[in-house]
Amino acid sequence: MSQSIRIAIAGYGNLGRGVEAAIAKNSDMLLTGIYTRRPPSQLKPRQEASPVYSMEALNGDVDKIDVLILCGGSKEDLPKQGPELAALFNTVDSFDTHARIPEYFAAVDGPARANRKTALISAGWDPGMFSINRVYGEALLPDGATYTFWGKGLSQGHSDAIRRIPGVAGGVQYTVPAQEALDRVRDGSRPILTTRQKHTRDCFVVLEADANPEAVKRAIVTMPHYFDEYDTTVAFITEEELRREHNAMPHGGVVIRSGNTTAENAQVVEYSLKLSSNPEFTSSILVAYARAVHRMQQAGQYGAKTVFDVAPGLLSAKSPEQLRAEDL
Amino acid sequence: MSQSIRIAIAGYGNLGRGVEAAIAKNSDMLLTGIYTRRPPSQLKPRQEASPVYSMEALNGDVDKIDVLILCGGSKEDLPKQGPELAALFNTVDSFDTHARIPEYFAAVDGPARANRKTALISAGWDPGMFSINRVYGEALLPDGATYTFWGKGLSQGHSDAIRRIPGVAGGVQYTVPAQEALDRVRDGSRPILTTRQKHTRDCFVVLEADANPEAVKRAIVTMPHYFDEYDTTVAFITEEELRREHNAMPHGGVVIRSGNTTAENAQVVEYSLKLSSNPEFTSSILVAYARAVHRMQQAGQYGAKTVFDVAPGLLSAKSPEQLRAEDL
Ligand SMILES: NC(=O)c1ccc[n+]([C@@H]2O[C@H](COP(=O)([O-])OP(=O)(O)OC[C@H]3O[C@@H](n4cnc5c(N)ncnc54)[C@H](OP(=O)(O)O)[C@@H]3O)[C@@H](O)[C@H]2O)c1
Ligand SMILES: NC(=O)c1ccc[n+]([C@@H]2O[C@H](COP(=O)([O-])OP(=O)(O)OC[C@H]3O[C@@H](n4cnc5c(N)ncnc54)[C@H](OP(=O)(O)O)[C@@H]3O)[C@@H](O)[C@H]2O)c1
Repeated sequence: MSQSIRIAIAGYGNLGRGVEAAIAKNSDMLLTGIYTRRPPSQLKPRQEASPVYSMEALNGDVDKIDVLILCGGSKEDLPKQGPELAALFNTVDSFDTHARIPEYFAAVDGPARANRKTALISAGWDPGMFSINRVYGEALLPDGATYTFWGKGLSQGHSDAIRRIPGVAGGVQYTVPAQEALDRVRDGSRPILTTRQKHTRDCFVVLEADANPEAVKRAIVTMPHYFDEYDTTVAFITEEELRREHNAMPHGGVVIRSGNTTAENAQVVEYSLKLSSNPEFTSSILVAYARAVHRMQQAGQYGAKTVFDVAPGLLSAKSPEQLRAEDL
Repeated sequence: MSQSIRIAIAGYGNLGRGVEAAIAKNSDMLLTGIYTRRPPSQLKPRQEASPVYSMEALNGDVDKIDVLILCGGSKEDLPKQGPELAALFNTVDSFDTHARIPEYFAAVDGPARANRKTALISAGWDPGMFSINRVYGEALLPDGATYTFWGKGLSQGHSDAIRRIPGVAGGVQYTVPAQEALDRVRDGSRPILTTRQKHTRDCFVVLEADANPEAVKRAIVTMPHYFDEYDTTVAFITEEELRREHNAMPHGGVVIRSGNTTAENAQVVEYSLKLSSNPEFTSSILVAYARAVHRMQQAGQYGAKTVFDVAPGLLSAKSPEQLRAEDL
């Protein structure tokens, strides 16, 4: 086999841990190091053998890393880390603030291009695999409608929003696609659905000792942007129940394209994910895209890229010949 | 808008008709002609305005066509037409004899490369979109198993096989995925399934006047390769029922990748198709790939290609900027 692809991790949270696990599942890859802004000794990597370094050490390790996977948060970390690190490394990240993607793309493209590096932004499942399926759907069935449903799954942003309400000691929120809406979309009738018809939101909340349950409930269900446009349920649970029953990060969802090739013939395409761990699946995607980024940079394709720019075969450890013989 | 992509059709069967319909759904494309081996006057195109020419006229129309979509059969037509026409045109075809793909790829690659043309082979849904999903699945979840189920749908090959049996006046065969097998795969347990456990085969047969029903039934269910490894049902119907209830070409199926990112976390990815018309959906895919082939040839990417070589964004009529802003 040819030489291993040398991968490093920048930022060790949920995704960082997931990337560490995913690299171990890909025999053509090698984890060269985990880089963190915290004191390296504070980190306990999943595998004892994984070396942990300070983020400052990255500058000196430019020649030891083929692709750096950026595992920082989209809100605070990536807008700064993405452009800086794309000047030094080939990178992959999972930037997921949809509205700011064009701006982020431009910020990363400049330094990457100037330094002949390849920077893949916004990989993961949404943005990521769901985006790919939206594009395939539109292209294959131009006369049609696209539907994205999320869940059942834990929403980090909405859980955070609950926890900021006075009187709340802890809590989680699950986004759940409405079965009736899903059925209507799957039958090819292209319904027009309101936000309320598509998803419900289920909250599990631990109260502080002196909190007023009714006031907390009202604060949740009327919260603008987050909950007011949805049918929301609120259940109060104990601290212990929260720890025991709501400590996983399941997620998933479906992208459906429903369209007609002629007036008589409706066609329905569905892509669906059932994930036990959202961050681990996201990380596994980032690692597959690291393989593609390595190949694209070697082929002289510099600058910022998205999943739309990556041919499926580039993600595979198999050769093109092998793919044609075994997978086509 | 920039100039339309000029598309022509070689061979006017089910796919040819579907391509004609699909071009009308894509506003950046123009149908320049339908080419056939039969006398052009014999053909009645879907739209009266579609010009029909003899296949011999193709040689003189090299400069009028950006991409030629080959709609011939995989068994007899494409092995000859594919290599010949790839020397003159950018082409897209749906060659679906899986075992002979490497050989066909090589036969098309030579002439295409020598003439700076781009030839995309084996597009459609299987091979095609299902193949892409097998590759994505393997790459994203390397520790996993892939399952392809076909149906419920009409199988042309198996219907033909029934019709060759003495005593059979007509008939169709539907391939049906076994619900129990599907459920077991979807729960993430990675079962090992036999051929018999995955699909059943339902046959609807019209007998000739003097035929022996028992003998026909036995001949079907014991037919090697086609039926002997499956649970097969045979129902006898009238000529009239066959015409009335079995004249559509529905199909579909699912590709499921079930894998683990860590020992604790199973992840299930599913791609599914529910098609009212198999040939129309296949044709719509061929047309989207024609757009990609046109762009790849303009970018100097010559030779034979497969769907694994085509970045998703190339299929879309939208610009990369628009895709990033709207679909990512
Ligand atoms: N595209 C998609 O489908 C998708 C899916 C899921 C997530 N995402 C994106 O991925 C981003 C990262 O997600 P995540 O779950 O990995 O975030 P996270 O766990 O909060 O980690 C983000 C960063 O915070 C730091 N950190 C982690 N644990 C810490 C701790 N205990 N104390 C102090 N700092 C800590 C780490 O940087 P240092 O090691 O440098 O301190 C880490 O890189 C999210 O912002 C989201 O936008 C995208
Ligand atoms: N990849 C996939 O997912 C996928 C899906 C579906 C099908 N396919 C492939 O597509 C191929 C074509 O399928 P199809 O359903 O379009 O086949 P078809 O209807 O049998 O047409 C094949 C060719 O036969 C000729 N023909 C059609 N109707 C005729 C008639 N009435 N009399 C005489 N000749 C006639 C046409 O050539 P002329 O006009 O030159 O005579 C046509 O190009 C199949 O072989 C299959 O391999 C692939």
